[in-house]
Amino acid sequence: MRYRCSVCGQEYPLETRQWQCECGGLFEFESGIQFSDEVVQRGVPTLWRYRALLPVHEDRNVVSLGEGFTPLVRSEIYGHEVWFKSEFLGPTGSFKDRGATVLISVLKELGISTVVEDSSGNAAASIAAYCARAGIHARIFVPAHASPAKLAQIAIYGAELVPIEGPRENSAVAAQEAARDAYYASHNYNPLFVEGTKTFAYEIWEQLGCAPDNVVLPVGNGSLFMGAYIGFKDLAEAGLIDNMPRLFGVQAKACAPIYEAFVRGDEDARPVESGKTAAEGIHIARPVRGRVVLRAVGQTDGKMLAVDEAEIRSSQSDLAQQGLFVEPTSAVAVAALQRLAAVLEPGQMTVVGLTGSGLKSD
Amino acid sequence: MRYRCSVCGQEYPLETRQWQCECGGLFEFESGIQFSDEVVQRGVPTLWRYRALLPVHEDRNVVSLGEGFTPLVRSEIYGHEVWFKSEFLGPTGSFKDRGATVLISVLKELGISTVVEDSSGNAAASIAAYCARAGIHARIFVPAHASPAKLAQIAIYGAELVPIEGPRENSAVAAQEAARDAYYASHNYNPLFVEGTKTFAYEIWEQLGCAPDNVVLPVGNGSLFMGAYIGFKDLAEAGLIDNMPRLFGVQAKACAPIYEAFVRGDEDARPVESGKTAAEGIHIARPVRGRVVLRAVGQTDGKMLAVDEAEIRSSQSDLAQQGLFVEPTSAVAVAALQRLAAVLEPGQMTVVGLTGSGLKSD
Repeated sequence: MRYRCSVCGQEYPLETRQWQCECGGLFEFESGIQFSDEVVQRGVPTLWRYRALLPVHEDRNVVSLGEGFTPLVRSEIYGHEVWFKSEFLGPTGSFKDRGATVLISVLKELGISTVVEDSSGNAAASIAAYCARAGIHARIFVPAHASPAKLAQIAIYGAELVPIEGPRENSAVAAQEAARDAYYASHNYNPLFVEGTKTFAYEIWEQLGCAPDNVVLPVGNGSLFMGAYIGFKDLAEAGLIDNMPRLFGVQAKACAPIYEAFVRGDEDARPVESGKTAAEGIHIARPVRGRVVLRAVGQTDGKMLAVDEAEIRSSQSDLAQQGLFVEPTSAVAVAALQRLAAVLEPGQMTVVGLTGSGLKSD
Repeated sequence: MRYRCSVCGQEYPLETRQWQCECGGLFEFESGIQFSDEVVQRGVPTLWRYRALLPVHEDRNVVSLGEGFTPLVRSEIYGHEVWFKSEFLGPTGSFKDRGATVLISVLKELGISTVVEDSSGNAAASIAAYCARAGIHARIFVPAHASPAKLAQIAIYGAELVPIEGPRENSAVAAQEAARDAYYASHNYNPLFVEGTKTFAYEIWEQLGCAPDNVVLPVGNGSLFMGAYIGFKDLAEAGLIDNMPRLFGVQAKACAPIYEAFVRGDEDARPVESGKTAAEGIHIARPVRGRVVLRAVGQTDGKMLAVDEAEIRSSQSDLAQQGLFVEPTSAVAVAALQRLAAVLEPGQMTVVGLTGSGLKSD
């Protein structure tokens, strides 16, 4: 098991404290383990049913709060038959718990005692909760202007909050400076986080008994989107599915750097001047993973889409009136279904990821 | 399947619109089905694995959002080894989803198109969500002074809110008057609600592989407490467990009518003049089910306890620092563990129900 630079190919051991390659390239993770149907522990009602496929050696290092194997709820909306994957029922209220449980388990195994992270929302809450469970100290760099309710959730898990003035990016810079002395448990840079989110795809395959035709997800930095891509790729390589699902990534128009790059036909996203959006969880003006997200979209014959604020709000309400209350960030994926009328074909199976709880939003 | 009055024994058919006996007694439900290990569908990751034991005939009438089979998280707190049952991960953020999924499924099967209910919190949110999923209109009578955040969750599911001035009891009276023209889907009076919450006990038995020695739960009107009692009783009658667990019910000192009756040795609770408490979910000054809760406590050699506001707040924080963020109502059960030092014995298995999400509280 090792990291490999996605740009220059240089290898790093799992124990490294570097969080990106010396060349500036993003790390990828190579587990050397191939997916196999036989190793799935079907009696385990969490994502740790895929224990044999996750990079943790000893059972005592598994840091679990009962995450994963979230419900897949069949429904109809905007004329489409869809399956909603209720990721908002993670222990801290978002899909981020998939990444955090795996990342923090590995860090416990490596003997890490302090981590730093930057986020003002779901990722920070999740890292804080799993660090609390693991007995690891978490220092979270947050924008000073972040919503008090979201900061309160992070703080109650016992994490240390470090408010940073200025735009969101400043918190990342501060965390990266602090990472000289502490482990950077970044949900954006650390590929072990995506090792956790890939179980999203495994579960859909188990729950449907096959791969869906289409998967629709909100995209900010792509930590779930890339997990879905890698997970379905594992299943395809193991010969368990015939075709990759088409992956559709959705952004808020007010902040849509990856969508704009897709429209231009670019290979990577450029930073944007963002406007206001209710979809705070994907309000990422300088995405770190634009290149790999665009590649995954291209390789699966998918699309990037963007929806406006009115669509987000009305989709949040339309979904709640089916009994599913999600935050605006998740509603962007639901809103996109209206724009996919000509793309999704009748009889196709479409999965929509409901990424965060409505109880988190204002 | 029928209702039977718990006081005079009179029988009523499932189709009745009466919500209590003509004598004023509470209904009990007689399904005529005995628990059996063989009928559990272990591949179904929700409480509908107990489908054969629940009073719904046709699959198409099952109204599900993916509820139940909640995580059981092993931990240590205040010197006790405990298993936390994460009921706060229900689709609407509380254990109430167990009751709502079963009750609303039966009502769908009966062809009910409009229900009334009274609650200002978790029960109303849950009834509203399942009615939305079922296509049933829900009119919820709520105290005019209830917290705006809680009312917002009820309203977003599409329920009609009817604000009622005065104390909480006035909403119940208003709902009961409205029940002349609409079905009263009461989580307190309708025993089908408890038919759902009994699955809490079934799951613990499956997850532990046996019955625990002790179960500790917050108690307001006892809809989970009675479900736990009935569920374990089913298992005992089926010969699947040797002993009933001891059931410990916990109230907030500021509003503890059942605890006070227990201390006095009374058979039923008397209404109290309540003070302020953060534990809103169990702020019930006139409990409907005092008598049956006290009987269940007595028959399992259990106890009622009461904890103060400082204990509730510190237990909420202590639990969050283990990664589990619950509302103050749930923290009362955790707080009681400190008072059970001399009661719980080392090596015993103790389950604590974490009933509602911390994301719901202010």
